[in-house]
Amino acid sequence: MSVPRKVMIHEVGPREGFQFEQITLPTEIKAEFIEALARTGLKDIEVASFVRSDVVPQMADAESLVAKLTPYPNVTYTGTYLNVRGLERASRTGKLRLKHGLTISASETFSQRNQHASHQEAYDQLAKRADIFRDWGIGSVSLGVAAAFGCNFEGDIALSKVLDWIRRLEELAFAKDLEVDEIRLLDTMGWANPKSISESIEAIHGLWPGKPISLHLHDTRGLGMANAYAALLLGVSDFDTAVAGLGGCPFADHKGAAGNIATEDFVLLCQEMGIETEVDLDALIKCALMAEVLVGHPLPGKVKAGGNLNRYRQK
Amino acid sequence: MSVPRKVMIHEVGPREGFQFEQITLPTEIKAEFIEALARTGLKDIEVASFVRSDVVPQMADAESLVAKLTPYPNVTYTGTYLNVRGLERASRTGKLRLKHGLTISASETFSQRNQHASHQEAYDQLAKRADIFRDWGIGSVSLGVAAAFGCNFEGDIALSKVLDWIRRLEELAFAKDLEVDEIRLLDTMGWANPKSISESIEAIHGLWPGKPISLHLHDTRGLGMANAYAALLLGVSDFDTAVAGLGGCPFADHKGAAGNIATEDFVLLCQEMGIETEVDLDALIKCALMAEVLVGHPLPGKVKAGGNLNRYRQK
Repeated sequence: MSVPRKVMIHEVGPREGFQFEQITLPTEIKAEFIEALARTGLKDIEVASFVRSDVVPQMADAESLVAKLTPYPNVTYTGTYLNVRGLERASRTGKLRLKHGLTISASETFSQRNQHASHQEAYDQLAKRADIFRDWGIGSVSLGVAAAFGCNFEGDIALSKVLDWIRRLEELAFAKDLEVDEIRLLDTMGWANPKSISESIEAIHGLWPGKPISLHLHDTRGLGMANAYAALLLGVSDFDTAVAGLGGCPFADHKGAAGNIATEDFVLLCQEMGIETEVDLDALIKCALMAEVLVGHPLPGKVKAGGNLNRYRQK
Repeated sequence: MSVPRKVMIHEVGPREGFQFEQITLPTEIKAEFIEALARTGLKDIEVASFVRSDVVPQMADAESLVAKLTPYPNVTYTGTYLNVRGLERASRTGKLRLKHGLTISASETFSQRNQHASHQEAYDQLAKRADIFRDWGIGSVSLGVAAAFGCNFEGDIALSKVLDWIRRLEELAFAKDLEVDEIRLLDTMGWANPKSISESIEAIHGLWPGKPISLHLHDTRGLGMANAYAALLLGVSDFDTAVAGLGGCPFADHKGAAGNIATEDFVLLCQEMGIETEVDLDALIKCALMAEVLVGHPLPGKVKAGGNLNRYRQK
């Protein structure tokens, strides 16, 4: 595989970022921010999570937020959910493309802490979810492995374990007549490095030739962009990113949850390598600066301070 | 070339970092900080710049600082200078290994702004410097190109221009009976990307086979660690880095000068890729946290917040 000609960016800032922040922003402000993102050329924006408002109060306005959003040509708003009730709520909005996936944490300890479910319990829940997908006529799903490179509770995660989980999830999908549209690796706690990224991608290419891979990278320990570059070298073209690096603050002590790689820094990487993103980087940098104002503290993305190189070229 | 078995890290934080900060730290504090760095296993620490104290007041204590430093086995303290007077001052300390180099900016505009010298003037100064090297019995020098990937004033810098400058500097060195011990590329204003890094290194490998290359990378636009990784893939094993990413603050508006890549993040990259640094990452992280206290504001390095993965492995 060689460097892709273009990449698909899944902007997760509004959902992952605002969910994480202490403050709850007014719905109107969130909608304006999301629409500003939509005008940058980003094609896939995760706007809300349909979860219990007593657990995640920042997402209590999911329905009213989605109702406010102006549709833009070529822009898909997406939403996430954890259970059937969330799936039903998200579907009722009628404006979202839902991401359907069977995702498990490779770390059982993390699964227990994050979802209060052992591996067996998590697997049983996924089997039920797969039934629902079949009942709802959902034809294809992604297979996802969270904590795919390591875990703050369990340490390194062996690649063989990740591959075993992909195989088991694939069997589950096939048993429910679901096709697999992509394999997702999530570096939930920032354990990946360019070597482990490369080895994982090469192994998946070997076992599932031609199957698209998507990466969800956190920049917890400064290796996020090097990891993205390693994946690009192997032809990976689907990435979750968050504008300004939303989703965590590098100066707070929440070690499990530092931000996703910053969308605008990743767009610069692609621009400079000649990879098409179809994103207006200057407009995106304005959104990143806006995100800092909205959350009220510095966010980790760099190019919003350093500046788009094309601006200097045009001088 | 393949990934190196070990790397040599040139810690530039105390010089490049403290020179850049608004505050001037007490000499005693600087010395304690530098010695803490020396105890981490770092082997090469740039401690001071012998420049005019009316221009860089932060470095006015260069001599007294060096006098205070306790020597550590296997640790070299280094210093920089701009002219003969600085070279004389640095040499008189008797405790520094001086880095002797012939370095020019590939961007003439940057040369004029930074050194008030046209390319011809800068070259003439280097010729005089080379005479001094010969007179002082200095046998070998590095050849350096600053702004080697681009410039905020001139835009992209063509690789052919960089290679031409290396050739001219090499001719100059040879004419003065100086050997060339390495070729240095400085991404002074954060224009490099992994593709331009790779192309530059491959070109130099082709033209100067076996000649060591060293890189001085700034993380102005978030691509610093990806650039370091691209260089590691091509066997480069000499890097300038700055603890905590000293040398610039990502939240201030000084676009030309954001920090060097953070030493501790680079050490983590190497650790995770199985590349030897001989640095105690936990001790280095403590220094990075100390650096934030000393300068009084957040610094961009990530792993100081995210934590050394080996700590989690030992649980």
